[in-house]
Amino acid sequence: MIKKTINLLEKIRTESPLVHNITNYVVMNFTANVLLAIGASPVMAHAPEEVEEMVSMSGALVLNIGTLQNDWIDSMILAAKAANSKGIPVILDPVGSGATKLRTESAKRIVEEVDVSVIRGNASEIMSLTTSSAKTRGVDSSESVTDLTLKTASMLSAEKKCVVAVSGVKDFITDGSRTFCIENGHKLMTKVTGMGCGLTSAIGAFCAVSNGDLIEATTSAFGFYGLCAEIAASISEKPGSFQTAFLDTLYSAGEKEIAKYMKCSLV
Amino acid sequence: MIKKTINLLEKIRTESPLVHNITNYVVMNFTANVLLAIGASPVMAHAPEEVEEMVSMSGALVLNIGTLQNDWIDSMILAAKAANSKGIPVILDPVGSGATKLRTESAKRIVEEVDVSVIRGNASEIMSLTTSSAKTRGVDSSESVTDLTLKTASMLSAEKKCVVAVSGVKDFITDGSRTFCIENGHKLMTKVTGMGCGLTSAIGAFCAVSNGDLIEATTSAFGFYGLCAEIAASISEKPGSFQTAFLDTLYSAGEKEIAKYMKCSLV
Amino acid sequence: MIKKTINLLEKIRTESPLVHNITNYVVMNFTANVLLAIGASPVMAHAPEEVEEMVSMSGALVLNIGTLQNDWIDSMILAAKAANSKGIPVILDPVGSGATKLRTESAKRIVEEVDVSVIRGNASEIMSLTTSSAKTRGVDSSESVTDLTLKTASMLSAEKKCVVAVSGVKDFITDGSRTFCIENGHKLMTKVTGMGCGLTSAIGAFCAVSNGDLIEATTSAFGFYGLCAEIAASISEKPGSFQTAFLDTLYSAGEKEIAKYMKCSLV
Repeated sequence: MIKKTINLLEKIRTESPLVHNITNYVVMNFTANVLLAIGASPVMAHAPEEVEEMVSMSGALVLNIGTLQNDWIDSMILAAKAANSKGIPVILDPVGSGATKLRTESAKRIVEEVDVSVIRGNASEIMSLTTSSAKTRGVDSSESVTDLTLKTASMLSAEKKCVVAVSGVKDFITDGSRTFCIENGHKLMTKVTGMGCGLTSAIGAFCAVSNGDLIEATTSAFGFYGLCAEIAASISEKPGSFQTAFLDTLYSAGEKEIAKYMKCSLV
Repeated sequence: MIKKTINLLEKIRTESPLVHNITNYVVMNFTANVLLAIGASPVMAHAPEEVEEMVSMSGALVLNIGTLQNDWIDSMILAAKAANSKGIPVILDPVGSGATKLRTESAKRIVEEVDVSVIRGNASEIMSLTTSSAKTRGVDSSESVTDLTLKTASMLSAEKKCVVAVSGVKDFITDGSRTFCIENGHKLMTKVTGMGCGLTSAIGAFCAVSNGDLIEATTSAFGFYGLCAEIAASISEKPGSFQTAFLDTLYSAGEKEIAKYMKCSLV
Repeated sequence: MIKKTINLLEKIRTESPLVHNITNYVVMNFTANVLLAIGASPVMAHAPEEVEEMVSMSGALVLNIGTLQNDWIDSMILAAKAANSKGIPVILDPVGSGATKLRTESAKRIVEEVDVSVIRGNASEIMSLTTSSAKTRGVDSSESVTDLTLKTASMLSAEKKCVVAVSGVKDFITDGSRTFCIENGHKLMTKVTGMGCGLTSAIGAFCAVSNGDLIEATTSAFGFYGLCAEIAASISEKPGSFQTAFLDTLYSAGEKEIAKYMKCSLV
């Protein structure tokens, strides 16, 4: 997986894939800067009149339901259907699903009406998509990923025929048959808003150059993103300068850092 | 008040209260990062379908009328009524009230239709809520707080039975009977967008753990926020790196810094 | 032009002109911080009920069609007509024009329905406003400005009686009779989102204090902005800390730096 990650990152930096984001207001700026730092080209567009045209030029579509409102969900569906018809990967971040009825129903509507390629969330968000027993408090979660979650992720993956990725102290990425575990990342990531959303967009960039091997692309994104956070935290343990160092590291880290720091295993 | 501030900050860091913000596009990211750095959990949600549910899980509701549009005001009213019915404090930042008719009328509509717990603004914003004689130019103000403003704040506080806080070179916080003065802060705060909005959200975090003593919670937020700005300005006197240092300081400053730098007096 | 730039920057810092922005969600925060760092006062407002009132107090109006939706275009037209009636300069950034039909038509609608004073874009955006042969990929462009673009810019300038500015490795600013070339800037500018949008707002600040000499104001903005990027890149060659250093430099650079670094020529 380390060699795969190095290759995909190199491809992103060479090809600079366009990643179309329909995402929340809070993280638009940071997400765009994450994609630029990695080497991809971000575009944000949500108007129903242009999303199909925009996604058609893109290498991946990222949907994020933070700061949700209903007409944006309509645009997400429209864009995702266009992406589906062209074989462009669709990455979903169900921010806050499980916390309110609107978020849960919107996330479920998306996974029912379109073919999602990758879903990334924390444990309670992922669990909200299949059962009503999980509860999300806010949009962040640092709880450890339980066996129940892993089982849920695996079931969701099989049901929707997509990659399901669960962020936590350890990250798990499954396609129903294979499950990878990433042990990179740093607790300061929970002190900067949009770190999870930025990861979801980074997954979009890796998927855009993956030639269809989406579980490896998703795992690569988790590994690279997490190790860049570790390097950034070694530069500063305070959230303002950590965020700056993180963007710097996404831009400057490469083969050497991946080989040295990435911790990936098959579960 | 210094001991109170130390205690409340400690409670925020232990309890990590959820602060629900319905705020303007410009400052959403910075505000979320301010709340995370202090130790609180931010959530941004404005859809009418979910604001009541979201605020019900929160420790405070922050309303901010920058980049205003009418349907957002409807959501603010909806959320605030839900907050009122559950005794959750509602903090209002009447950004630009006095500058345009829409802003002034919207701010007035909020204070008339719901019970606001704390109003924080600059002198002209506060004055716009009771008289038509003050004029706001833009959304920032570094003008000194006049006796007239203090009188207005005191009247507004008595009329609305809420805490009124006026930002300026010196900050004044009143509940109609007691008035505190904070002499912390730095002029670089006017060179970074959203510093006032971030303070309003910080007030939300302090109120969320205050057990109802809102004037002391508000005064504590002003003191802590202002002294963190002073420390940040001692690290850098330029706005980009000042902003980074400010977030770092909100995260790292504590008992020692509060005891050393906070300047609070009873007027 | 160097002396002109020094004088205009000094005026911005003394007069602190209000610059009204109707801009995209991604860059609102950064744009506001750019304007504050330069010395201007930013305001963001898009509601149809207040844009005419807001622009009437402003020294310039900046329109930016990123993250476009139709009702925002209506507000832009409304604000621009109010600006036109009062002689307030209107600066247009046709972000992504040429990339989708909605963006191209919206940009064209603006330049047809109101008097735009300055248009700033990359080569493909500018070309999209007069011909259908240019294609935009995403919203960034680092392609070199060809003779064709220069000719197009000149024609557009003559047709619309406005200043047309084309960003690229070299920047060209023309009013149809005179054309200036700026050779400042740095390639890291393409790795931070909103650098172009921030420049457009900076042009607004320079135009606000220009007494009507808009080509010199626009050229001054390009020169100062670009040389600040060069200085920032000499502090850090990584995008996170480059962005911080850039805001710091916009705030601290002045006469000395302009005299030393600005590279402007008449074409």
